[in-house]
Amino acid sequence: MSIPQHVAIVGLGLIGASLARALRAARPDIRLSGYDEDRESVARAQALGFIDAGVPSIEAAACEADCLVVATPVRTIADIVVRALQAAPDTVVTDTGSVKGSILARLTEAGVPMGRFVPGHPVAGSERFGVDAADAELFQDRRVIVTPTATTEAPAIAMVEALWTAVGAHVERMDAAHHDEVLAATSHLPHVLAYALVDCLSAMEDRRELFAYAAGGFRDFTRIASSSPHMWRDILLDNREVLDTTIGAFEQTLAQLRSDLRNADDEAVLRTLQRARSARERFLSLMEHAHTEV
Amino acid sequence: MSIPQHVAIVGLGLIGASLARALRAARPDIRLSGYDEDRESVARAQALGFIDAGVPSIEAAACEADCLVVATPVRTIADIVVRALQAAPDTVVTDTGSVKGSILARLTEAGVPMGRFVPGHPVAGSERFGVDAADAELFQDRRVIVTPTATTEAPAIAMVEALWTAVGAHVERMDAAHHDEVLAATSHLPHVLAYALVDCLSAMEDRRELFAYAAGGFRDFTRIASSSPHMWRDILLDNREVLDTTIGAFEQTLAQLRSDLRNADDEAVLRTLQRARSARERFLSLMEHAHTEV
Repeated sequence: MSIPQHVAIVGLGLIGASLARALRAARPDIRLSGYDEDRESVARAQALGFIDAGVPSIEAAACEADCLVVATPVRTIADIVVRALQAAPDTVVTDTGSVKGSILARLTEAGVPMGRFVPGHPVAGSERFGVDAADAELFQDRRVIVTPTATTEAPAIAMVEALWTAVGAHVERMDAAHHDEVLAATSHLPHVLAYALVDCLSAMEDRRELFAYAAGGFRDFTRIASSSPHMWRDILLDNREVLDTTIGAFEQTLAQLRSDLRNADDEAVLRTLQRARSARERFLSLMEHAHTEV
Repeated sequence: MSIPQHVAIVGLGLIGASLARALRAARPDIRLSGYDEDRESVARAQALGFIDAGVPSIEAAACEADCLVVATPVRTIADIVVRALQAAPDTVVTDTGSVKGSILARLTEAGVPMGRFVPGHPVAGSERFGVDAADAELFQDRRVIVTPTATTEAPAIAMVEALWTAVGAHVERMDAAHHDEVLAATSHLPHVLAYALVDCLSAMEDRRELFAYAAGGFRDFTRIASSSPHMWRDILLDNREVLDTTIGAFEQTLAQLRSDLRNADDEAVLRTLQRARSARERFLSLMEHAHTEV
């Protein structure tokens, strides 16, 4: 089982529509169908040439494709996967959710055979959303993490890996629990901080003036607070247990720095800032060399 | 007293060298001299054509110019201003420090007449630093806040305002204490959070892998943690009293969001995220219309 011949995408938001657009560009031989609760998104994706056709239901999408990609908000994914696996047990099903443990827990609870389900997460995105934000380059040189379980069938994993490789991504396997810890630290916590910062400032009485004096650094720092509130509520809540530990660790680091500042401890403050700057330099060099490392 | 004919710049880092370069481009008739403890920076600024000449001392710089701009790390500014005012009582002196209250307190303590000192702060910058990072456009359409006191002479304020206006900035007056509150919220707190986040993640044992899976949003979010640790230690410490209150307000907002997540309070989490996103949209529209509002 190698790359699929017919891919169905459920959920034509930024990720789903970008995947359709990228596949269309890279592999015009693959047939693409799409489903979204919002019929206008389907019509728009078809009009823009991202998909060949819309399908009337999740079940129909699962039956006609070899591979179905569920790219809907994270808390809706498990139900859709169950419906797809029940309607078409031979179709390989994957998803793009930013949290993996909660989805696997719901599927286990539903009791559906999961051999053909390959949990996946393209670590890519943007604060923009919707079919019109689709970007054919969104996955180029980005990582896609797949978190198969002991029962996931090897050919199903291979098909999903071939799909993402076709659009320029680097696929890596990871344990679902580890995935959720890594993403809590590198993505979910930064979103929490950005949302909390903007909310905190907007609550200060002279907020209009505050924002008027914010500079470019503030714009970059808060960019992710423009992400979809509904999508991020779902992500944060689905990963709330791991995230709680991560927020706790951050609160301790912040409290220590606050205490060092209050005590005017020059050396301690400088050490923290230097450690952080060095760590970010390492991160930047990792990003630059990402494609040679994988 | 309008725009100066001879400007001396003390401190040829990003801000000082960018001001020299911008003035050179906008007003080639103004003579520019420069001083820096690091003689190589002076030689480099002269070689790049940013300044006409180096001067051997702060006192010499103050004596030969109509306007001296102190663009050194914030905790060194007050001493340099005192030396300049004592050497050349007729020269207008201004600075570019990110904290204003601490500088004014040190000057008051020194007992030097301050009529010709105009405290200033260009709200512009970058995580880059040094003379080679100089950018002639750095102040274009950015705000410069001046915080004159009751004893600051009006013609001195007018000269400093003319200087910044010449390089495309919009000058506004503000009380020094208010300036420090606004900057604590919009600049100093975001830097604290970015440094603390990167430091927190780098302390987690599998940090190398953490950073390997961080995406573009993380890069933007942590950009300001690449700022100069020495410069930011000084800024954070000089504004530590105001900043302590601001960090406290943020800790409360974060604790509330953490509690809402722990309680799986969908509605409360969504409300916070929506409020933050709306506030950021207002901030973006303020930035877009900044030049028409001023």
